Amino acid sequence: MAQINAHYLKLKAGYLFPEIARRVNTHAQAHPQARIIRLGIGDVVRGIPRPIIDAMKDATEELAHDATFRGYPPDQGYDFLRQAIVAGDFAPRGVTIDPDEIFVSDGAKCDSGNIQEIFGSGNVVALTDPVYPVYCDSNVMAGRTGSAGSDGRFDGLVYLPCVADNHFSPPLPQGHVDIIYLCSPNNPTGTVLTRGELSGWIAYAQREHAVILFDAAYEGYITDPEIPHSIYELEGARQVAIEFRSFSKNAGFTGVRCGYTVVPRELVGQTGDGQEVPLHQLWARRHSTKFNGVSYPVQRGAAAAYSPDGAAAIQELIAFYLENARIMRERLIREGMTVYGGVHAPYLWLQMPTGTSSWDFFDHLLQEAHVVGTPGAGFGAAGEGYFRLSAFNQRDMIQEALDRIAAM
Amino acid sequence: MAQINAHYLKLKAGYLFPEIARRVNTHAQAHPQARIIRLGIGDVVRGIPRPIIDAMKDATEELAHDATFRGYPPDQGYDFLRQAIVAGDFAPRGVTIDPDEIFVSDGAKCDSGNIQEIFGSGNVVALTDPVYPVYCDSNVMAGRTGSAGSDGRFDGLVYLPCVADNHFSPPLPQGHVDIIYLCSPNNPTGTVLTRGELSGWIAYAQREHAVILFDAAYEGYITDPEIPHSIYELEGARQVAIEFRSFSKNAGFTGVRCGYTVVPRELVGQTGDGQEVPLHQLWARRHSTKFNGVSYPVQRGAAAAYSPDGAAAIQELIAFYLENARIMRERLIREGMTVYGGVHAPYLWLQMPTGTSSWDFFDHLLQEAHVVGTPGAGFGAAGEGYFRLSAFNQRDMIQEALDRIAAM
Repeated sequence: MAQINAHYLKLKAGYLFPEIARRVNTHAQAHPQARIIRLGIGDVVRGIPRPIIDAMKDATEELAHDATFRGYPPDQGYDFLRQAIVAGDFAPRGVTIDPDEIFVSDGAKCDSGNIQEIFGSGNVVALTDPVYPVYCDSNVMAGRTGSAGSDGRFDGLVYLPCVADNHFSPPLPQGHVDIIYLCSPNNPTGTVLTRGELSGWIAYAQREHAVILFDAAYEGYITDPEIPHSIYELEGARQVAIEFRSFSKNAGFTGVRCGYTVVPRELVGQTGDGQEVPLHQLWARRHSTKFNGVSYPVQRGAAAAYSPDGAAAIQELIAFYLENARIMRERLIREGMTVYGGVHAPYLWLQMPTGTSSWDFFDHLLQEAHVVGTPGAGFGAAGEGYFRLSAFNQRDMIQEALDRIAAM
Repeated sequence: MAQINAHYLKLKAGYLFPEIARRVNTHAQAHPQARIIRLGIGDVVRGIPRPIIDAMKDATEELAHDATFRGYPPDQGYDFLRQAIVAGDFAPRGVTIDPDEIFVSDGAKCDSGNIQEIFGSGNVVALTDPVYPVYCDSNVMAGRTGSAGSDGRFDGLVYLPCVADNHFSPPLPQGHVDIIYLCSPNNPTGTVLTRGELSGWIAYAQREHAVILFDAAYEGYITDPEIPHSIYELEGARQVAIEFRSFSKNAGFTGVRCGYTVVPRELVGQTGDGQEVPLHQLWARRHSTKFNGVSYPVQRGAAAAYSPDGAAAIQELIAFYLENARIMRERLIREGMTVYGGVHAPYLWLQMPTGTSSWDFFDHLLQEAHVVGTPGAGFGAAGEGYFRLSAFNQRDMIQEALDRIAAM
């Protein structure tokens, strides 16, 4: 009989968010009158700005006519989008990226899940803890780990605990690792890595010949000009880092699906016998073999996000969610809670009272306040004792959720 | 230093179609006046029908407004689309598929490339030869093969030669295999598997506890009511087969990106110690971890393909391309060529005169006629001596290409 990939059986039953969805659905069925407020999954709620919508509709109309129809998109994305990305996201910050180093995709989740395929199975992988589950699960599925212990940690992975005591800044690994996932602004903690901290990581990667997989999906939320938006703002990063970007949380593309990955030409890995191979070449092969490009109207929409009107509208969207975060942060602190994040990120990271399990708090919040959050333990062992609230909701919902939480 | 996935180095430099694109670009630069006619890559050329375009534009407009905005799509696709698929593609042919067995994706290429991830590395994989390169390359990248020999065949794969002598119907493997890729109507040969032939494959899979990965991306082109569109039209298929479908070649979605995969609940694989595991559960986990759903406007467009107007317009599109195929077939036969396919498929499979290499014919056709085809050898060793022409072009281009070929 065909053998399954038994590494999948090491994973817990569900990916975190489907598990949350199941509990919320059960609650909704039991309490049909309850107005559930969702501050759990990091999904935006506001309409996509008009310049982007119009660009998508115009592009869709082009597809109706033989003269302007477009078929298979270029593997790495249309030039018009890759040029716009380079000019909009990197040039203004003094970073030189060649359009050929950009790989347009259907989202940062897919890319950050798929990227491990170009690496060998024997690499030592380091993850922050808590962590976005995709980084971990995709490596488990690929067989780079042993089984999970009772704390949910997988044998063979190196965990870098990020807790209040170290200001949620991941400590450098004690020994050698080959691949490191970093996310800044961080999901789930809502904290950011400073220039100095990122420089330390680049120096580590140079010393250890490691590769940093840098997830910058939330860079649009950074409010302090001193905080890097791209790892390539730091010297030496092109030799050690791949970067993931997304249009989900800035342009509101969670339901539209577009992101991109930067793989600099200089970045190499090696074969077992020491031959150096550019990772760009490997990712290009993966992209052209197991993916078939991004929908044309979606790419036109993403490009419109860089137009003056599009960019201004996006700044307004981000400012709205950041104002939500500020309101949440201040109110929850006033209510006596300990709150991290929410300044350069749409996520607040609440510290639970000692002894409260984060899944218990999840159930409690759902039962009593009909508010959905995300239990910290869902992001890793070191996330236990914390709870994530998302600022992605309408203002009145945010206010009502805060009132309900305060009343609890 | 981080180790690369060295299995990638077993692959030839490029995926087939990028290699063709490179040669065509070189030719175009050398002959800027030449009007190149592309009958190579299987990409459609006609505008997408109005009901589908309007559905996509309406859905895009919904995303502009807070009240109708939609964020992350459901992992497996929206219910409205999965219901439409079941009612439109399966119920009319007497096949019962549960909407929960449908996984909507961004295309059959992605699914047929990714599906091998849910299987163990030790399975014996059988491929037809010639074959759609993605089936082969994705298994090479996953490490299920040794190196390629001088004929391009990889150690460890079982090749099933499909040539004129066996009417391009793959012979059953001599011994045991675990996984079999079948594609009908076939890319590249343009031929179809009959009910009897498919029944033979199902019986084989039942006997050997093998899994059939059935690619039905071209089912819309079948013109004989006796030929199955879905493998599930045959008894026993639910226990042994996964099926891939696409909106690319019927609704013209090559640039829009949508397809789906059917994984029946009954279908299982096993672990090393004999525990049976439903493949549905594994594919659901893969889909929710390394993919994030299909763009909402695209799903609305796909659903509109099942509306009465949408379906009628698609039938017209398919009839147009099939008429192209008929014209090509009859003319080329009249010119003395031996031609297969092109009746239930948009591909013609030309037999070369003995001793002509298919890449030589590719270059010759490009140089002399400025016509792009696909060399049979690009699809496998048994494809040598054959050449694929696609019927996906405007009628006048088809006529001119035929005139130029005839003049050669």
